Parts: sequence; structure tokens; C-alpha cells
Amino acid sequence: MKSLAEHLPAGALVTDPDILAGYRQDRALDPDAGTPLALVRPTTTEQVSTVLRWAHRHRVPVVPRGAGTGLSGGATAQDRALLLSTERMREITVDPVTRTAVAQPGLLNAEVKRAVAKHGLWYPPDPSSFEICSIGGNAATNAGGLCCVKYGVTTDYVLGMEVVLADGTVVRLGGPRLKDSAGLSLTKLFVGSEGTLGIITEVTLRLLPAQTPQSTVVATFSTIETATAAILAITGRLRPSMLEFMDAVAINAVEDELRMGLDRTAAGMLVARSDAPGEHAAAEAAIMVEACEKSGATEVFSTEDPEEGEAFTAARRFAIPAVERRGTLLLEDVGVPLPRLGELVTGIAEIATRRAVLVSVIAHAGDGNTHPLIVHDPSDADETARAHQAFGEIMALAIALGGTITGEHGVGRLKKAWLPDQVGPEVMDLTRRIKDALDPHGILNPGAVL
Amino acid sequence: MKSLAEHLPAGALVTDPDILAGYRQDRALDPDAGTPLALVRPTTTEQVSTVLRWAHRHRVPVVPRGAGTGLSGGATAQDRALLLSTERMREITVDPVTRTAVAQPGLLNAEVKRAVAKHGLWYPPDPSSFEICSIGGNAATNAGGLCCVKYGVTTDYVLGMEVVLADGTVVRLGGPRLKDSAGLSLTKLFVGSEGTLGIITEVTLRLLPAQTPQSTVVATFSTIETATAAILAITGRLRPSMLEFMDAVAINAVEDELRMGLDRTAAGMLVARSDAPGEHAAAEAAIMVEACEKSGATEVFSTEDPEEGEAFTAARRFAIPAVERRGTLLLEDVGVPLPRLGELVTGIAEIATRRAVLVSVIAHAGDGNTHPLIVHDPSDADETARAHQAFGEIMALAIALGGTITGEHGVGRLKKAWLPDQVGPEVMDLTRRIKDALDPHGILNPGAVL
Repeated sequence: MKSLAEHLPAGALVTDPDILAGYRQDRALDPDAGTPLALVRPTTTEQVSTVLRWAHRHRVPVVPRGAGTGLSGGATAQDRALLLSTERMREITVDPVTRTAVAQPGLLNAEVKRAVAKHGLWYPPDPSSFEICSIGGNAATNAGGLCCVKYGVTTDYVLGMEVVLADGTVVRLGGPRLKDSAGLSLTKLFVGSEGTLGIITEVTLRLLPAQTPQSTVVATFSTIETATAAILAITGRLRPSMLEFMDAVAINAVEDELRMGLDRTAAGMLVARSDAPGEHAAAEAAIMVEACEKSGATEVFSTEDPEEGEAFTAARRFAIPAVERRGTLLLEDVGVPLPRLGELVTGIAEIATRRAVLVSVIAHAGDGNTHPLIVHDPSDADETARAHQAFGEIMALAIALGGTITGEHGVGRLKKAWLPDQVGPEVMDLTRRIKDALDPHGILNPGAVL
Repeated sequence: MKSLAEHLPAGALVTDPDILAGYRQDRALDPDAGTPLALVRPTTTEQVSTVLRWAHRHRVPVVPRGAGTGLSGGATAQDRALLLSTERMREITVDPVTRTAVAQPGLLNAEVKRAVAKHGLWYPPDPSSFEICSIGGNAATNAGGLCCVKYGVTTDYVLGMEVVLADGTVVRLGGPRLKDSAGLSLTKLFVGSEGTLGIITEVTLRLLPAQTPQSTVVATFSTIETATAAILAITGRLRPSMLEFMDAVAINAVEDELRMGLDRTAAGMLVARSDAPGEHAAAEAAIMVEACEKSGATEVFSTEDPEEGEAFTAARRFAIPAVERRGTLLLEDVGVPLPRLGELVTGIAEIATRRAVLVSVIAHAGDGNTHPLIVHDPSDADETARAHQAFGEIMALAIALGGTITGEHGVGRLKKAWLPDQVGPEVMDLTRRIKDALDPHGILNPGAVL
């Protein structure tokens, strides 16, 4: 440890237990988080390399961490591990000509969006946590968001990166080029690798022209069936820029907090948007209104006013904290091919009934990615056990429906027990071979994913 | 060999030298192509697995092959290797609800486009060879095309695949889900791996709604400088759905064949398109016209007529065969960050002068990906040597400008000597480690990429 501290600037290495305590968990709040050796907060790639060279030599595990907003325990501290936080790596440069940005990992997603917006550009991926999550964490988990239904996920925007490998070697992959077929697609391999293959110290991001003003449709439904029918009717006719779902529990929880006049009697609500240029947004909104009405919506409302539309989007984003007022949440992230969405939502309700726990379903409905929120009281051991049973059963259900245990949060430590069930032993073996080839001593984020 | 034939249906294994002769080369026409052991034309994944299990046991190299239209020698036959052609694997199913298609690798790109168009959908990637190249080859090389400037490359459309690994193991990766963060992004690793990590036996493709009618702008320039200035002026203001460049040699070669009335005195010509919805296409075309005029175009022409626009696009696609009438081509595929495009084109002209060879430059200008066509007479040993010198020097120039030796064709065997110069020894080592982990006996496409 002393030999490491000597090679880092003053303050980069922290062993104060009070400070360390604040870094032991991410938002998965794993009660079994370990006691780390120290926290490192580098400001440069060179310092990250120094840390990994040291850790590699001494076989000390390293748990990388962005903003600590992960929901799958990918940044949960391990005993005797170094925590490596990228929070102080916050540079960004924007090139409006190539429409790319080069960012260090500690910058928040919202800060990236703001930096590029100054040049009339847009970085699309928009996790609900975009104000507090880091771009490095986004890349490490292949994060998604609300606009992904039209604009794809993080990997679709990462053109290149700088990565520090397990032994401290620094590599540059890809670059500010839309096209590059030179060698293996290593950039894309590191996206979503959750800190198990290397530590991302810089990302080169592809940007789009600024998004045009969106039209917004809000529709309520008296049954889940009519709501899911409307989702398929919309996506069968056009590609919305957002298509979000909230169930009755979420609607009521949000209405309790925000008093927006949401229909408390509805079984489900959709918030859909179009960002087609000019009056085409309104035209697409009209098609979505018609799809909702024909599918049996009880009420449909449409607005061209961006602020009003943003208020409904914010309401949907607020659903998680709102439901959290009802109890502690186990936050799911299962996804299915869109036609199976109805079966997933119905099946989740059955699991909730069987396990006698409250489950609220909110969803990035347009891409089949749902966030069942399992509400429970951690002081009630029996209810907590039932909540965890439901958590596993929901993943099993998603797998049975041809889906995924995690659409955008990552596997981390919370979901790794279910990963083999989804991908099978051959893919696990393939994963293990790549992991062993890149991190032979297993020092990078041990216990995550694998 | 007999033990392999016994496990395959009659006709799947071919040893007739006359038939084999037609499979020894791809469009790189490598004169040093080897003499293969046999050709296998499987129709099912199970047969591919059978072949690889046999090859793995007997340590027989396997060279996979799609339609044989590759330009980098990725499918060049090797001595004592099995050639595995996917040409008979031609199934496709389209799901308009999830907006995905599941295709076997032997289907041609154009056949995929036609199959999905029946459902009002669009598969964007469009290599110039789209009528004759296979979707499996597109995935294996991460192929590009003309619309990539707006719509991205093949990897952006591959959501999942089935792959047969070196030992015959069949794995399924990803699936018809826009979002999936479960485990490593293995799907994306196999895209662009050029048959060195496994054989792709099925791809799950993301589709878009049908493209709307495009407006087309054609502009001619008296200097390369004004043409590249116009390219930057266009991409700085909007994202065209196509932005192609042809130099004087290409313009004249095309005009010789097609008699379209192209300006034979121009130093360069741009063909740009917009597919913004409705009248927004014309509005974007007007912006592009203005950008060309302000940059010093000698003539600018704009049309809303899709057929007329398609004629100019076809003229651009025809540039390679047209220039080929002047001699045998060494076809380059170098790309640079867009602001360096002018330096690249100027530098290529200097190389051509120094090496006394004719080089025609055509380019997917909007994404910085150029195809310098080095014209030479293979019966003239000295000229051929100079052509090859120019070929290498153009790649070195692209690397020096922060670019890539291959934007969309792949490294294959033709460009592998330059790959280390681009990516560096650390990335080569990383690549080698992944290769060794997945193909420990090195039977998959040996000699390609690495």
C-alpha cells in the first residue's frame, strides 16, 4: 500500500474508514458489501495504470466505480479490494465537425448532454438516472434509457475508448470514425463488460444533431391487455422517440407526490413521444392517439407543448422514487421481445400474488424493457424473503419468454446467479475464457458477472 | 475426409478440383491462394458444427466464405484447408412486430432488403456490392455502405447471432431485443471478426421503418479543396442520408460508360441525399445546395425525383467497375476523421505522382471512408510493384492522419501487415489473447487478420 501511495499524488489514495464507508455500496445497497483496503480517486489514465500495475503485481482485487448509481451491485466493495473511483476524471472535448465527443469516465451523463448541446449536438442515451450517473458507468453497463426505443443504447454511441487492462497496460481502441473494420471489435467488447475486463478511462462518443421538439401522447387504460395492445399498435406503425408505461401502483404513487391529475383508476398509462421533424411530430402523435383509441384507451391526451410533454416524461422518471415511498425496492430490469410484453406483465402480477408482495411495473415499453419494482420492508424477514423469491421468479419468467434478466442495468453481483440460466453453459464458458485471457489473475471486479 | 463425408448429406462435401478452383479466391484475387482440401456447403447449423468438430479433432484449418465478394482476401483458400461456404444457408424470417429479421448467412444483402421491404421495413447497411454480397459476410466484416453516414454500420443492426465455435460448439448470443446487458457483448465481438473466432450461422437483425423518398443534390467542383470544404459545410449543418464523392478519373470513367452528361472537366463531384420526412427532405437538400454553392461549386443540381436521384447514386456505385476498365484495381478502403479528408485526398495524389500510378479516389465522403482505386497492369511487373508500394503508403498516410486502414472491407490477408501499425503492439497482443482463448489450435481462418 505504501508503495502504491508513493506513486500517486497526495490525496488520490484514501484509507480513512469514514470516507471508505461511503463507497462500499452502489444503489443496489448490498448488505454484504465487503471492507475495502483503500479508495483510489485518480485524475489521469497514467494514475489508473499505476494502480493496476500495483494491484496486478500484488494480486489485489480492484473494484471500479463510476458515480455509484448502479442497481445491480457491480460496484459493491469486496474485502481487501481497492476501490477505484473515476469521479475525478471529468474532462470532455467536443468536435462539432466529426460530431464526436471525447470524455473521461467520471463526467455525468447529464454533463455530457449539456457539453455537447452547446454545439447544437445531442448524446441520446438517457437512463432515468441521467442527472447522477456517470458516462463511464454507462459504457461499463451498456446503459439504456427512454429514447433507446428509437435511438439505441450506449454501445451504439461508443466509437472508441481508452482502456487500462488488468496488468496496467493502456490501450486505445477505435476512434472518431463512424466506420472501422480494422481488427476485432474490441471497443464493443468492453462496452457492457462491467469492469471485469479493464477500466475505461476515456470514451469517444458519436453524437447526433440536436433533437427536434417532441409531440407527446398520454393515454390511460382500464386493463393491462388494452395497454399492451396499444403498445404493439404504436410500434407496428411507427418508431416513437419514447414509449413508456406505468401501472396503477406507479400512477398512484406519482400522483400522491406530484398532484398532476393523473387518472388514479387506470390500470396502466402510456407516455409516448415523437420527435419527427416539424409538423411530422404532430402527425405521428395523431397516429399514436388513434392506435391508443382503437386499442381501447379510456382517455387520450396529446400535446405539442414541449414543457407539458416534459412534465409527463418527468412524471414517468419520478415513478421509481415515488414508489420507493411505499417501501424498500428490489428493482428489476427484465426485458422480453415486444410481443411477449403482455405475458410478462401478467406473469409478474401472478408472481406478486403468489408471493404476497407488492410489485409495481414501470417499463420502457417500446423496447420491451420493464422495471418491476418489488416493494418490501427489510425489517420484515419473511416479506424480504418473499420479495427475493419474486425477484428470482421474475427473471426466470423473462428467460422463459425469450427475454433477458437485464436490459440496461447490468448483471453485477445481484443477478449473476441467473445469468447461466439465460445464456447457457456454453456462453458462460466462452465468457470465462475471454475473462481469463484478459485478466488471468482475476483482479478486475471479482465476483461481478461471473 | 471420409469420416467427415459420412456425417454430411450427399453433395455437401466437394473435392472436384474444377469446382474447388472457383472457390479459391475472393474479389481480392490473391494470386497466392492455396490449394484447399475440399469445399463444404452446409445447409444447416448442425452440419457446420459437424464440420468444425471434425476439423478441430484433425487440426484441419477452415476458411469460411460467404458470397466471395470480399476485397481483402479474408476468404482466400489456404493449402490443406477446408473451405466452408455458407451459400446454401438461405432462410429468413421477418417479424414486423419486433421489427427484426432472423437470417441465415448465405442470403444476399439485397435479398434481406427485399424480404423485409415486403413488411414495410428497411435493413439499412448498403455496401456497393449489396446485390451480390452475403449478409453473413457483411456481419463477418462489419460491412458499411453509402447510408452509413446517417444510419451506422452492420454492427449497429446485429442484435443477436448463432455462432459455431472452433470446436463445433453452437452458441446463441443476444436476440430480438433492443436492450440486453446480460453478460459480455459477445454478439458485437463476433461482428467484424472475419471468421477468426467462429462461424456465424444466423443473424438477428434490427430493422427500421421503410426509408422515405430522398431528395438528391449533385454538385461539381473545380478543385479538391472546394469539394472537401463543401463536405464539411454539409455535415456541419445536418446529417445527410448519403454523401458520396468521385474524383475526375471516376467521373470520366463513369461518363465513358453511362453518358449521363457528367461534367468531365470537374475535379470532383458530390452526390448527397436527404431522407428527412416529407418536405423536410427538400429543405435539407436546399441547405446542402447552399453549402455547395458557398464552398465554390461550379454547378449544383437538385432533384426531388427518386428515380433521377437513384440514377446518380447508381453512377457512384458504378464508379468501381467503370474505373476497372482502365486496368486492374488495387482497391483501398482507408478512412480518416472527417476534418482530415482533404489532407488524405491530397496526400493520395502525391503518392500517385511519386509512384507514377493512376489512383482514382471515390469516397463515402460523409463518414471519411475513401476507396482509392490504384489502377495497374499486372503484366507490367514494375508498375505492379509501384502500385503495391502506393497501396501500402496510402494506408500509412491514413494511419498518420489518425485514420483506419479499413473502414468497411476488413483486414483479411491483404491488409494484415499494416494492422499493427494502426492499432499498436498492445492491441495486437490483446487480439491474439482473445483469438487463442477462442481458437486454441488456430484452425479458424488462419492467416487472416492476425
